[in-house]
Amino acid sequence: MSFEIIKPMEIEKESFRIIEKELEQMGKSFPKEIMPTVQRVIHTTADFEYADTLTFSIDCIQKAKKAIMEGAHIVTDTNMTLSGINKKMLQKFGGDVHCFMADEDVAKEAKEREVTRAIVSMEKAAKLGVPTIFAIGNAPTALIRLKELIDDGELKPELIIGVPVGFVNVVEAKELIMESDVPYIVNRGRKGGSTVAAAICNSLLYSVSEREL
Amino acid sequence: MSFEIIKPMEIEKESFRIIEKELEQMGKSFPKEIMPTVQRVIHTTADFEYADTLTFSIDCIQKAKKAIMEGAHIVTDTNMTLSGINKKMLQKFGGDVHCFMADEDVAKEAKEREVTRAIVSMEKAAKLGVPTIFAIGNAPTALIRLKELIDDGELKPELIIGVPVGFVNVVEAKELIMESDVPYIVNRGRKGGSTVAAAICNSLLYSVSEREL
Repeated sequence: MSFEIIKPMEIEKESFRIIEKELEQMGKSFPKEIMPTVQRVIHTTADFEYADTLTFSIDCIQKAKKAIMEGAHIVTDTNMTLSGINKKMLQKFGGDVHCFMADEDVAKEAKEREVTRAIVSMEKAAKLGVPTIFAIGNAPTALIRLKELIDDGELKPELIIGVPVGFVNVVEAKELIMESDVPYIVNRGRKGGSTVAAAICNSLLYSVSEREL
Repeated sequence: MSFEIIKPMEIEKESFRIIEKELEQMGKSFPKEIMPTVQRVIHTTADFEYADTLTFSIDCIQKAKKAIMEGAHIVTDTNMTLSGINKKMLQKFGGDVHCFMADEDVAKEAKEREVTRAIVSMEKAAKLGVPTIFAIGNAPTALIRLKELIDDGELKPELIIGVPVGFVNVVEAKELIMESDVPYIVNRGRKGGSTVAAAICNSLLYSVSEREL
C-alpha cells in the first residue's frame, strides 16, 4: 500500500479540489458566495448529500459576513461546536463564541421547568444584548425556542445556522426556521451535527478573512 | 406545524427505537455486543450508510470494555472528540482523555520536522506508558504512524478507533489499521469524523456502565 506524499498544508487544498471536481461530475453548481460553505460541509462529512439539502436564505452569506466584520458573537448548543470554531479568527473582529449548555444555572433552571437545557440556553443568549449568529448542531428545541423568541420580538439574530441531527422533531424544527424572516442556513432533513455547525461557521470566517480556502 | 411533546430524557430512547426499527426494515442485523455502537453512530450522523461500513475486529468490544474497566486512557486527535467523550464516566474507572494536537511542543516539533501534528501527537501518546484506546476521527497520518509504532514494537494499543473523514489518504490509512493485529473499530471509506469517534467511545463507556442506552 502506498501513500501520496503530501505536505500538511496541501491536504486541505487537495481535498477541496477533489470535492469541486466530484460536484462538477454530478452536475451540481452553486453561486460563488455559497460554494465555500457547501465545500467545507462536504469536507467535514465526506457526504455529498449535503449538496442537495443545504438551504440558504437570500443574501444570507453577505449578511453573515457583514455581521462578523462588525463584531457579531456566535452562540452554539454544543461544546463540540464551540471547540471546532476558529475562535482566534472571530475574536480578531471583536466577537466571541459561547455555549451555555453546561452552565450550572442553565442545568438547574431546565430541571425545575422540565424543559431542555437548550431552551434555557437560547433564553440566556437572547439576553446577551449583542449581535448574534446562532449555530445549532444538536438540539431541535433550541430552534423551536429561537423561533418563538423571534416571533415575540425578543430576539433578532444576524443568522441562524440550523443543522441539528436526529430523529425526533429535527426535520420539523428546521422547516420552522425557514418560515422566519431571519437569515438562515439550514440543512433540511435528519442530517447535520456539531461538526457541520462548526464547518459552516468556519467557512464564513474564512470568507471574511479571505483565507485561501 | 406540531411537535411531539416528549420529555428530554425520552428523546434519546425514542431515537434509538426509530434507528432499530429502520435497521430491521432494511434487513440489517448485528451481534448484540456491536449493536449499541452501530446505533450510536447512526444516532450521531443520521446516516444509515454506517451500518454497511463500520468494521469490527473479533471480540474488540469485549476487549475494549475490559480495558476501560481496568483504567485505560483514551487518546484522540481532535479537541472536538475530547469535548464529546463522557469524561466523567471514563474517570470513574481510573482513565482520562487526552488530545495533544494543540500542545506547543507538538506544534513546534511538527513544524521543525515538516510532519503533521497528528504524527507527533501519536509519538507523544506512545510515551504515556498507560493502556490506551486511540480514537482517531480526523488525521489519517495518525493512523499511519500508529501502525508504524505497532510494527516497531513501541506501542500495543488496547483498541484503535479508526474513523477519520476525508479525501486524501483516508481510505488507505483505515485499511492499513485493519492489517494490524490490534483490536480495531474502523469505518471503511471516506466517512467518519470527530463526532463519530466520540460516539463510538461513548457507546463503549455506556456499555461498560450498563447505562440504559
